[in-house]
Amino acid sequence: MKGKTISEIKIGDKASISKTVSETDVYLYAGITGDLNPAHINEEEAKETMFKGRIAHGMLTAGLISAVLGMQLPGPGTIYMGQELKFTAPVRFGDTITATVEVVEIENGKFLKLHTFAVNQDKQVVLDGFARVMPPK
Amino acid sequence: MKGKTISEIKIGDKASISKTVSETDVYLYAGITGDLNPAHINEEEAKETMFKGRIAHGMLTAGLISAVLGMQLPGPGTIYMGQELKFTAPVRFGDTITATVEVVEIENGKFLKLHTFAVNQDKQVVLDGFARVMPPK
Amino acid sequence: MKGKTISEIKIGDKASISKTVSETDVYLYAGITGDLNPAHINEEEAKETMFKGRIAHGMLTAGLISAVLGMQLPGPGTIYMGQELKFTAPVRFGDTITATVEVVEIENGKFLKLHTFAVNQDKQVVLDGFARVMPPK
Amino acid sequence: MKGKTISEIKIGDKASISKTVSETDVYLYAGITGDLNPAHINEEEAKETMFKGRIAHGMLTAGLISAVLGMQLPGPGTIYMGQELKFTAPVRFGDTITATVEVVEIENGKFLKLHTFAVNQDKQVVLDGFARVMPPK
Repeated sequence: MKGKTISEIKIGDKASISKTVSETDVYLYAGITGDLNPAHINEEEAKETMFKGRIAHGMLTAGLISAVLGMQLPGPGTIYMGQELKFTAPVRFGDTITATVEVVEIENGKFLKLHTFAVNQDKQVVLDGFARVMPPK
Repeated sequence: MKGKTISEIKIGDKASISKTVSETDVYLYAGITGDLNPAHINEEEAKETMFKGRIAHGMLTAGLISAVLGMQLPGPGTIYMGQELKFTAPVRFGDTITATVEVVEIENGKFLKLHTFAVNQDKQVVLDGFARVMPPK
Repeated sequence: MKGKTISEIKIGDKASISKTVSETDVYLYAGITGDLNPAHINEEEAKETMFKGRIAHGMLTAGLISAVLGMQLPGPGTIYMGQELKFTAPVRFGDTITATVEVVEIENGKFLKLHTFAVNQDKQVVLDGFARVMPPK
Repeated sequence: MKGKTISEIKIGDKASISKTVSETDVYLYAGITGDLNPAHINEEEAKETMFKGRIAHGMLTAGLISAVLGMQLPGPGTIYMGQELKFTAPVRFGDTITATVEVVEIENGKFLKLHTFAVNQDKQVVLDGFARVMPPK
């Protein structure tokens, strides 16, 4: 398993993954990170918020971006250098999220800048930003 | 459970959490996100990389930052608006990571900018960046 | 992270945590303990019982008591010496449980006795009893 | 799957289960219950305690007692009414715990009292107490 080297990548290249985010995903993620915020694991309190129920952790959705970078574009061997994220809408249990990365810049023939974003089943953008990576050699 | 409102927070306020990152954490995280990159779950391939073994997902460590924001400062009720991250060193299985957030700016009496970083047991910075949040009202 | 010492605690001090208990929680707990009793993991058999469906393990709810003691009152550094439990009502998947501990006795300036109980979203008591702990020094 | 009725049980009946308690068990349990006490998930802090390293949650071991009651004696269909527990020694990652229940009293031909205890691979008692259950009809 080896990802694409920088010479195999051009501006405009894109890749995506999609997943229906489940209660299981959120509960396991809460346990791993210790983020047991009631917004994520307490339906009674979450009902009273502006989101009207439990939502996924924004950083969990960010993990789907990381997955596309590490699995597809550039893929295995990639060094993840940095990420800018904006969380633009909540992800509810049962939402199907599509995370996409698109190459927007090749720096010094060595690093990539990618536009990274995620949308739900209604095409609403839930996360938006940019990644910087070093593809495998 | 309710976090701090903006009037209860001042520049320089800090909070942290610590965790020994286990193989279990990494494997569950891989399953949740689909990031099954061999760097994280294939010891044979990972041995051949510059890191000489499996490492945790950078974005998993970022989840510890999210946990401090959501659980402690500002705490429950916080809206997570954005995050900038640089991954500066690998996290190996068994490393004990301390994630810290520190308030560096209060914007318009409404939003906070926080310096967010994580160090391992040797005080090496593994993740560095800034978060933007809206504390609970 | 350090909990309260005995001199910082007085009779009547209380702390709580709340969680919506999910199928995921129950299935993971079943796997960890080996308690694969059909009451917890077999909906077809569980439908025929007096509870009309799968329920959480009573001892899982007891774990929420343990969490309040270890995380909040007294908090980190506490030695858990003993627990008496009565399971007074079933916890169904999706129930939001609030576990509370309240200091009722300070023994020889060294140990605490706490009233420990858990209620569901309808304020029905699902677990009741007493804990004995040694706070951190 | 149905457990023993009270007429099939006599004083002195015993049953046990054994398990090597893993880091995975403890980390998942921490996530389910929210008990992220550093004694369980932070090796650096735990090294400084009297236990010289991370230990399992006492209530996790209690779950093995619950498993014997629910799976073997009396077995499926049992109503778990109450439990008294003393935590008498720490359980370390990798310890092999044997949890045993023994019938000590039959109350009104309806309920059982059982002596419940758990030992490690060195036969050291880590948990001791009594359970009260109603066997299936």
